[in-house]
Amino acid sequence: MKGIILIMDGIGDRPLKELDNKTPLQAANTPNMDLMAENGINGIMDSIQPGIRPGSDTAHISILGYNPHEVYTGRGPFEASGVGLDVIPGDIAFRCNFSTVNDDYIVTDRRAGRIRDNTADLIAKLNEIVIKDYEDVKIIFKESTGHRAVLILRGKGLSDKVSDADPKKEGKSPKEVIAIEDTKEARKTSDLLNKLVRKTYEVLKDHPLNLKRIEEGEPPANIIIPRGVGLVPKVESLNKKYNINSACIAETGLIMGIARFAGMEIIEVDGATGGIDTNLDNITETIVNNVNNSDHDFFLINIDGADEAGHDGNTKEKVEFIEKVDKVVISKLIQLKDCVIILTADHSTPISLMDHSGDPVPLVINGPGIRIDNVKSFNEIDAPSGGLNRIRGSDIMNILMDLMNKAPKFGA
Amino acid sequence: MKGIILIMDGIGDRPLKELDNKTPLQAANTPNMDLMAENGINGIMDSIQPGIRPGSDTAHISILGYNPHEVYTGRGPFEASGVGLDVIPGDIAFRCNFSTVNDDYIVTDRRAGRIRDNTADLIAKLNEIVIKDYEDVKIIFKESTGHRAVLILRGKGLSDKVSDADPKKEGKSPKEVIAIEDTKEARKTSDLLNKLVRKTYEVLKDHPLNLKRIEEGEPPANIIIPRGVGLVPKVESLNKKYNINSACIAETGLIMGIARFAGMEIIEVDGATGGIDTNLDNITETIVNNVNNSDHDFFLINIDGADEAGHDGNTKEKVEFIEKVDKVVISKLIQLKDCVIILTADHSTPISLMDHSGDPVPLVINGPGIRIDNVKSFNEIDAPSGGLNRIRGSDIMNILMDLMNKAPKFGA
Repeated sequence: MKGIILIMDGIGDRPLKELDNKTPLQAANTPNMDLMAENGINGIMDSIQPGIRPGSDTAHISILGYNPHEVYTGRGPFEASGVGLDVIPGDIAFRCNFSTVNDDYIVTDRRAGRIRDNTADLIAKLNEIVIKDYEDVKIIFKESTGHRAVLILRGKGLSDKVSDADPKKEGKSPKEVIAIEDTKEARKTSDLLNKLVRKTYEVLKDHPLNLKRIEEGEPPANIIIPRGVGLVPKVESLNKKYNINSACIAETGLIMGIARFAGMEIIEVDGATGGIDTNLDNITETIVNNVNNSDHDFFLINIDGADEAGHDGNTKEKVEFIEKVDKVVISKLIQLKDCVIILTADHSTPISLMDHSGDPVPLVINGPGIRIDNVKSFNEIDAPSGGLNRIRGSDIMNILMDLMNKAPKFGA
Repeated sequence: MKGIILIMDGIGDRPLKELDNKTPLQAANTPNMDLMAENGINGIMDSIQPGIRPGSDTAHISILGYNPHEVYTGRGPFEASGVGLDVIPGDIAFRCNFSTVNDDYIVTDRRAGRIRDNTADLIAKLNEIVIKDYEDVKIIFKESTGHRAVLILRGKGLSDKVSDADPKKEGKSPKEVIAIEDTKEARKTSDLLNKLVRKTYEVLKDHPLNLKRIEEGEPPANIIIPRGVGLVPKVESLNKKYNINSACIAETGLIMGIARFAGMEIIEVDGATGGIDTNLDNITETIVNNVNNSDHDFFLINIDGADEAGHDGNTKEKVEFIEKVDKVVISKLIQLKDCVIILTADHSTPISLMDHSGDPVPLVINGPGIRIDNVKSFNEIDAPSGGLNRIRGSDIMNILMDLMNKAPKFGA
């Protein structure tokens, strides 16, 4: 028996006037999702708890059975893991931007003109940095997509109780990092960071790549500004926790980072962009191939487009993307044999908010032995009358393991 | 006002092809349970939490309002309590088998030919054992049904962090007990146990009863093999916890053990076997008599047959037993006056699994002032649309006390 959790990122929504007071899921033509509802057990799910607005990261952490209040110390560790760094419990991790400062050390572009190419060359120089008095701390940078990068500080006596260097808007200098806890460790980390930020400017400002960018009228990527600090937590691997052989098929570094953190194998998909233009055919083929032919028995899948459309407040794109997922992906998944499939979302991203909300999301389970209920349609309004009622993200892995007959008995 | 929780052990199930995709509860003819659904408030219940497969022990612990993660340290304490031993917090308790070893100390029968009679004589000899260097530890054996027995170690400096002696199969010697925690207490306990197991063989091998069994071609019950270690926890009595006068009517030692643990009075029933052949008339008479005539105001009742049929994978027996409970027991209970009755199960035991599952169980409450909902039938598929939605085992006592008007107000 195999198990799949398919997260349609941000697919949940609220009724919209422009859709005759239907939600995008209700308005979209989704015969395959509706077939899953009809053949399955349905309900609503709060990925963290009712009313809490989850990030995609904290929602996925919770859905995988980890407590986000313990594990999620900040976004840095998951970004670092997501770009492929082997983080170690105790590391202090940050997400960073390549930014542009002028000669007065004022940030003139937080994203360095959305630089796309050759940031690896800049990173190579940054990784040579050693900060005086802190020679014991290993400084590891790695480029991510575009102007994004990550930073890890590895060593003894460090802390994540430090503030951001990000001034949040142009026209200001990078903020001085301060210790937000009165400890030796926090003071050491903030002092190191202040020296490091200044040092990245010294290393980058006359780098040939930047001199060329200036020549071409592009803002130079002449400083690194860290934010999203977090202490890399120690977590039990998902495979050990549930006695499974797990894999993740996702589009974004953030979700892959969480999966790597949990010790899952990452299966990459050509053409997966994380947007509404993603290659759903390739994603589907990858899922079907791996479910049928690999040794993995559990798959976490994340498809991101509906969330993007929600953040953009674009109703038409959200409805169309839902229909495309139904037609291309779900139509194939429902043909898989000996498989428990859970279809849900990590959170709602209502068009009206253009951001995540705390509204629960619909959830349906298909598979052998399921207690089929009377719900016939997959959406936010019909789901609550299903047989699952209202569950939490932290219940999902337990329910799946039970249905896959892999759950141990607690007691006799 | 009196309160009853009637646990129909393992009655929950999944849809079965042979029953036209109905569950045994749906397929069975249960006019009285359905009347309870129609006159009551319905819902589904996870005795521990969604997806978790409970044992009957952990489920009952949770339903009585105790946290099984704290209280359930192993099966030993509850077995020991169930056979009538007065366990004391701090005792280390085990369930044991009388087994047979040959002259090479190899287990040839883990159940000593399923010995039935006179094990009390063997126990009497075992209770004379004193282990050299551990004279301060009181060793208390007691026989249970058939080849089963229990063992308590009582004394200072003991630990339950020790392994099992049970080799799990024939053809091997009893396993050496090892300390699974590097403490003085665990080392003392494991050393004592190893010496004790060997000593039971010395005491039993030439016992007249065993010499007679050998003569008659029966395997001698010539060794005791302990397993299921647990530290007897300290728990507040149920009567004090809820300000009630409680009693338990159950069929199996395990459930009686939990009830004794909680300080409940045990009311025994003649002819209660725990199987599908149990005397339901006697059980019903005992319930009705005690509800009407005793000073007890709360009754925990467990009827075990459906669980046995589930473990045996016998659909016909499960359906027939459900119908028999409906006809004999429920028909009388619904006539009780001034009584809040909760009808539910401790867990599902699906025919298809032949073991417990994490599927929630249906639950219905009848009594004065209940918010009657639209559910008309007592089963797994209709229950979720009832007025209770989805609750947990740990909610039940609080809900019952509230409906019995015995709940204190938290706040003003």
